[in-house]
Amino acid sequence: MRVKHKPWAIPMLEEYEDIVIGEPETYRGRWAEVFNNDRDLALEIGTGKGQFIVEMAKHQPKTNFIGLDLQSDVLVMALKKILAEDEALPNLRLLWSNGQDVDQFFAPQSIATIYLNFSDPWPKRRHAKRRLTHPRFLAVYQRLLKPEGVLQFKTDNRTLFEYTLMTWANAGLYFEDVQLDLHAEEASAQEEVKTEYEEKFMAKGQPIYKLCAHFPEK
Amino acid sequence: MRVKHKPWAIPMLEEYEDIVIGEPETYRGRWAEVFNNDRDLALEIGTGKGQFIVEMAKHQPKTNFIGLDLQSDVLVMALKKILAEDEALPNLRLLWSNGQDVDQFFAPQSIATIYLNFSDPWPKRRHAKRRLTHPRFLAVYQRLLKPEGVLQFKTDNRTLFEYTLMTWANAGLYFEDVQLDLHAEEASAQEEVKTEYEEKFMAKGQPIYKLCAHFPEK
Repeated sequence: MRVKHKPWAIPMLEEYEDIVIGEPETYRGRWAEVFNNDRDLALEIGTGKGQFIVEMAKHQPKTNFIGLDLQSDVLVMALKKILAEDEALPNLRLLWSNGQDVDQFFAPQSIATIYLNFSDPWPKRRHAKRRLTHPRFLAVYQRLLKPEGVLQFKTDNRTLFEYTLMTWANAGLYFEDVQLDLHAEEASAQEEVKTEYEEKFMAKGQPIYKLCAHFPEK
Repeated sequence: MRVKHKPWAIPMLEEYEDIVIGEPETYRGRWAEVFNNDRDLALEIGTGKGQFIVEMAKHQPKTNFIGLDLQSDVLVMALKKILAEDEALPNLRLLWSNGQDVDQFFAPQSIATIYLNFSDPWPKRRHAKRRLTHPRFLAVYQRLLKPEGVLQFKTDNRTLFEYTLMTWANAGLYFEDVQLDLHAEEASAQEEVKTEYEEKFMAKGQPIYKLCAHFPEK
């Protein structure tokens, strides 16, 4: 996602340290202290401007949500979205961090759900390793997720979804749900919590793909 | 597929016994005798009006093809298509039979490729068992296919394809290729051997889905 550089982004992210966790490695295995409860933890890797994670946090107040993004210029938009809410969202935090480092922030088997929404497709074959649905990331997600924890992926990118179906099936993941045109039925379109991208592509009439899966028991 | 009843269909199928094999159970484990060679065997279950299998037989003269269908009124159209060809197709035979009986016609590990094209979607959940991609049929295909033999499925039916992706992934099949809009790229659209349905849906601009997979080694 290309966004305008915002020189005020980093100072603002640092200012709201109650929402944007500054040194997440400190809380590895101790996120219950941040949220003051030990409810299920859900992590969105690549949270972007935050619409999805903010709406999810509002819809599911009894789950703790963490939205992670590397780009300060984008994550600050998520922060502003949270600040613009009428009521505080005690079950939501942001991490200004690299998705590759999640192992340092979360203990094994500590996360109930991992969301990957509209991740960068990295269309060139030589960049396949950078796709967030690549096997090297699957190994990380498997460590972090609880047994039967859910990995959910949404995208509008057909080629990335084809790649992901193959990769995940061949890695032995169990498919709980596959949707090849998520908003084809009116009911599901209303029910689904959408990202900014999703609304844009829906408006164009492009299909949105969704895959929910869990890892096999070890 | 609803087709007009043709009282002449059964007599015609019986007349051309060199093309339409009358008692296929006779040839279980002995199809090399029918084709006068022991080349790879490819089976289409639900061959319909035969465009796919006829084109495949023409494109791949060194593979033996068998097209199977239960409906005489449809299979007779495939027979007429074969008869209308300028040259004989010594590598193609038809079976007027039920797909459920294939175990009786073919020995274990005797088939290189099984094609399922635009199979009946059986949309009601209580009819899921009748879908040709249901696990009970997978067990049959696994018996019949050679090790690393390929199972290929094409459909325009989104819900059936979603079901199939889930079912096959969860049955442990290895996905070789997933295509969510088979004819999106001009080149692949030209290359692909198409069924009658496929051409109809392509003309409407609807996506065609394709999945190639093989069973894990036992």
